Amino acid sequence: MAVGTVLITGGTGYIGSFTTLALLDAGYDVVIVDSLYNSSKVAIDRIELLSGRRPDFYQVDITDEKALDEVFAKHPAIDSVIHFAALKAVGESSIIPLEYYRVNVGGSIALLQSMTRHNVTNIVFSSSATVYGDATRFPDMIPIPEHCPIGPTNTYGRTKSMIEDVITDYVNAQRNNLQKEGKPYQQWNGALLRYFNPCGAHPSGIMGEDPQGVPFNLLPLLGQVATGQREKLLVYGEDYPSRDGTAIRDYIHVVDLARGHLEALNYLRSNQPGVKAWNLGSGRGSTVFEIINAFSAVVGRDLKYEVVARRAGDVLDLTANPKLANEELKWKTEFTMEKACEDLWRWVSNNPQGYRQEPPAELLAAIKKA
Amino acid sequence: MAVGTVLITGGTGYIGSFTTLALLDAGYDVVIVDSLYNSSKVAIDRIELLSGRRPDFYQVDITDEKALDEVFAKHPAIDSVIHFAALKAVGESSIIPLEYYRVNVGGSIALLQSMTRHNVTNIVFSSSATVYGDATRFPDMIPIPEHCPIGPTNTYGRTKSMIEDVITDYVNAQRNNLQKEGKPYQQWNGALLRYFNPCGAHPSGIMGEDPQGVPFNLLPLLGQVATGQREKLLVYGEDYPSRDGTAIRDYIHVVDLARGHLEALNYLRSNQPGVKAWNLGSGRGSTVFEIINAFSAVVGRDLKYEVVARRAGDVLDLTANPKLANEELKWKTEFTMEKACEDLWRWVSNNPQGYRQEPPAELLAAIKKA
Repeated sequence: MAVGTVLITGGTGYIGSFTTLALLDAGYDVVIVDSLYNSSKVAIDRIELLSGRRPDFYQVDITDEKALDEVFAKHPAIDSVIHFAALKAVGESSIIPLEYYRVNVGGSIALLQSMTRHNVTNIVFSSSATVYGDATRFPDMIPIPEHCPIGPTNTYGRTKSMIEDVITDYVNAQRNNLQKEGKPYQQWNGALLRYFNPCGAHPSGIMGEDPQGVPFNLLPLLGQVATGQREKLLVYGEDYPSRDGTAIRDYIHVVDLARGHLEALNYLRSNQPGVKAWNLGSGRGSTVFEIINAFSAVVGRDLKYEVVARRAGDVLDLTANPKLANEELKWKTEFTMEKACEDLWRWVSNNPQGYRQEPPAELLAAIKKA
Repeated sequence: MAVGTVLITGGTGYIGSFTTLALLDAGYDVVIVDSLYNSSKVAIDRIELLSGRRPDFYQVDITDEKALDEVFAKHPAIDSVIHFAALKAVGESSIIPLEYYRVNVGGSIALLQSMTRHNVTNIVFSSSATVYGDATRFPDMIPIPEHCPIGPTNTYGRTKSMIEDVITDYVNAQRNNLQKEGKPYQQWNGALLRYFNPCGAHPSGIMGEDPQGVPFNLLPLLGQVATGQREKLLVYGEDYPSRDGTAIRDYIHVVDLARGHLEALNYLRSNQPGVKAWNLGSGRGSTVFEIINAFSAVVGRDLKYEVVARRAGDVLDLTANPKLANEELKWKTEFTMEKACEDLWRWVSNNPQGYRQEPPAELLAAIKKA
């Protein structure tokens, strides 16, 4: 019998697929809804290959409340939601902001309404360290703790911050309203998970990030340089006041991140804390040059890069203080940034076309043997 | 020929109806959409009585994008929108926050999408001083200037602040995108009008605020005490560090406020400034006791009140610095708080049932004569 049944929105995406795997491995049943707008159904096959279990899947847009209602109605065992479904490209969000507000904020409102109608009362939300904006503007806020003031500097970050507010106000209201009526209220809970820089791939080499179009994160771009799909990496600025002049980020292995979602869900179900925000990061900051060096070491040759001017909106340092998650969720990262580089290289070198090609037979054979 | 044609959402509500009147008097054609959820169609008859012109009216919910499309399609002359339609009870917003986010934020997104499809590119938005939250936490921020940091302390205020962000990001993106394509972009403009405490009624005595259910603002409550519909006024706290211990607010006559919308619209159409925020307030703060005294003087007798404990979330002082609107919009308040008390008393004493009764014949006769 399953530990519980969880709806994962955006469950075929990068972090969503790894979280699905983590939940299946922990004994949960999983139902996925995803529009497949920016992901592939092949992810489900890989999840099944790795876990031996296949999640239910429905192609549903997160703004389609009626379709969400049908999924909840069909799966009355669902008691919790992990909510990833969103548009997520920072640059694009400044070009088509209304679409970002409609899908991300409007979709989250639709989801909460549908959850309420079906008495599904735990939500783990895929937020982002982007909500902090430039934390270096505050003294003593690096590494960043959860009480750092929110101040997103782009539309994508603003949608995440707004959804945090919507979930916080709604869960608090549901608890207050039920408590006033003398009814049990503790079942309403929300986790706001602020991730730093997710990276890496599954150690098996058959599951990883499969960005449509041009990737916009450092490691996938470096992966393309290594596979020859991209000539060189652009490094935006080497005049930051860091140890080597490049900007500092906190890279977190996607397998660790997925486990963070599992632990947050378990915490909500066991402790019924209301709404809480947790940083999911390693606490270790790496510069751009350190990442280039680590990935080059894994690949076995120097990767070409060019230093260009700083990008508007970029900040010096986004490193997490993960103490709260370490203590409350009993979660901390187990894999290093170097391990993420190894796993990423295994993924991109074996699957340069991502999910649009079959993985090498020897990788599949190794999984069947294990 | 009309100066222009404007869609007013929420145009039968309190501030919406006065703004409709101001626009008609200034030569604009007006089309109203309103759900009538918290207002009365009778307001349109009163507008016609006072202006001699009748705005077009459609009963449309602001979240109904298809219905909005139909109105724009039917009135291709519309070039601007003044957007009032929203849920507006601060207390209620903490009980049913999801409905507030759905209607206010979701409705504004739907409106902007529909505007875009019909090439309607100026929006004047009904924001609120509530977006500032407790400005007394900053030194030198009373009276409050527009650059005071935003920090709403309740769900209603958060919906207003989110809509400000949505409009700002969207108008800026539309301008940037069009400019990059070498197309005219200056037609996209937004005014964020942050009002302080609207009050008063039309000097004719036939048009005013007609709250459904229990009013939640000081002057309407005092009006009910004066007409005997309410036993006494509750005063929340007399231990504030103000001149008499009660909280300070900036009361602005609704006729002045309506004119502020007209001036903001004219400014957008003439100057095409992009997005700008303006405070609409008098710059004069009045305490609760000062309001009670002023209204009692108008009524001609002492009105009963009782001092009780402070309300959670109330702040000491919300007084506007209206300098920016004074200078840029060439707008300032012409009517005092005392004049607002007079006009309010003329309204409530002659229409204790609001729009659910005919006004006294002598008031109607005076209008016809004028």
